[in-house]
Amino acid sequence: MPNFDALPPRLAHQARFLVEMDKLKGVLRRTSPIGQDRRENSAEHSWQVVLLAITLAEHSAEPIDLLRVLKMLAIHDAVEIDVGDTFHYDKAADPDLGAKEHAAAVRVFGLLPDDQAAEFLALWEEFESKQTPEGRFAAAVDRVVAFVMNSHNHGGTWAEYRLSAEQVRAKNQDIPRGAPAIWDLAEVLVQFGVEKGYLR
Amino acid sequence: MPNFDALPPRLAHQARFLVEMDKLKGVLRRTSPIGQDRRENSAEHSWQVVLLAITLAEHSAEPIDLLRVLKMLAIHDAVEIDVGDTFHYDKAADPDLGAKEHAAAVRVFGLLPDDQAAEFLALWEEFESKQTPEGRFAAAVDRVVAFVMNSHNHGGTWAEYRLSAEQVRAKNQDIPRGAPAIWDLAEVLVQFGVEKGYLR
Repeated sequence: MPNFDALPPRLAHQARFLVEMDKLKGVLRRTSPIGQDRRENSAEHSWQVVLLAITLAEHSAEPIDLLRVLKMLAIHDAVEIDVGDTFHYDKAADPDLGAKEHAAAVRVFGLLPDDQAAEFLALWEEFESKQTPEGRFAAAVDRVVAFVMNSHNHGGTWAEYRLSAEQVRAKNQDIPRGAPAIWDLAEVLVQFGVEKGYLR
Repeated sequence: MPNFDALPPRLAHQARFLVEMDKLKGVLRRTSPIGQDRRENSAEHSWQVVLLAITLAEHSAEPIDLLRVLKMLAIHDAVEIDVGDTFHYDKAADPDLGAKEHAAAVRVFGLLPDDQAAEFLALWEEFESKQTPEGRFAAAVDRVVAFVMNSHNHGGTWAEYRLSAEQVRAKNQDIPRGAPAIWDLAEVLVQFGVEKGYLR
């Protein structure tokens, strides 16, 4: 390993955190990139939600601090290094998932200097709890990505799990809460999925 | 294709842009994720530089608007959809590369509503020209990633292209210009590369 101990302690902590986070490139999700026959990883997904937030910020239901939203989205999947990706429709299956994810957040962000560890943990908790305008907008963006991918990928996980339009709508109310205009986009994608037979 | 024409024109343009940008998941770079036997793509890389900028912002040589840095980094590789990734040490090989990349930026960002197309094109030009504190810090972050990856990947492209420590230092002066402390990190990684024989 490189001799990070030769660096000022703050920078050494940051370097170790950044190396650890590279592991998100190896955490596979259920979705595939459009037109590709492979599952995408959480690093690609994290970039995509950052890009969606930048592009669609004007549609937030409430005024937001976009910088805080982008920080949240860039780190929101860090816990998957320890617990893996959990499919949105399976979240209720493991009653201990919340505690496991919290422990993972404490470990991964704990590699950082104390003040940044606290900041990143607070950002992750804000994303998870959706109790602020920024948390709600970030959640809306994170949810709509699956609509974009599945509608362009012959149904993707919609088809694989034989979901209905009603299930998809009911399970994604974070979208209209965070950004009603983005829900209009989601609805166009659902209608396309129904027409094509991707959604029951 | 989904019926984006059913949406307000602004949102329809944004949706088409976001679908197009998904192609960055299929643009391969020379580097590999740490410990993985595959080349990484420009979407993963874009996430990683966003994360580095968030984590290392305090080390910028000059005060920066971090939000603008993150926007720049999230879109800085958009031109690769049309021209592919160009290896840093090969950039001089194609005298027309600048013109090709500019045309690609105009095309890809041109999918957006006019005001956003102009904003994103200006961000991309600011990143390329490195004439602002934000452009310089973004460039420093974008350059140091290769040091992190190669030093943790048995030399990676350093070894593959038989580069010397001197070549790597000379070719990456964007790093000390944008963030002297990040150059200290890069130097630790170079020294490790020399010790291990990854760098001549």
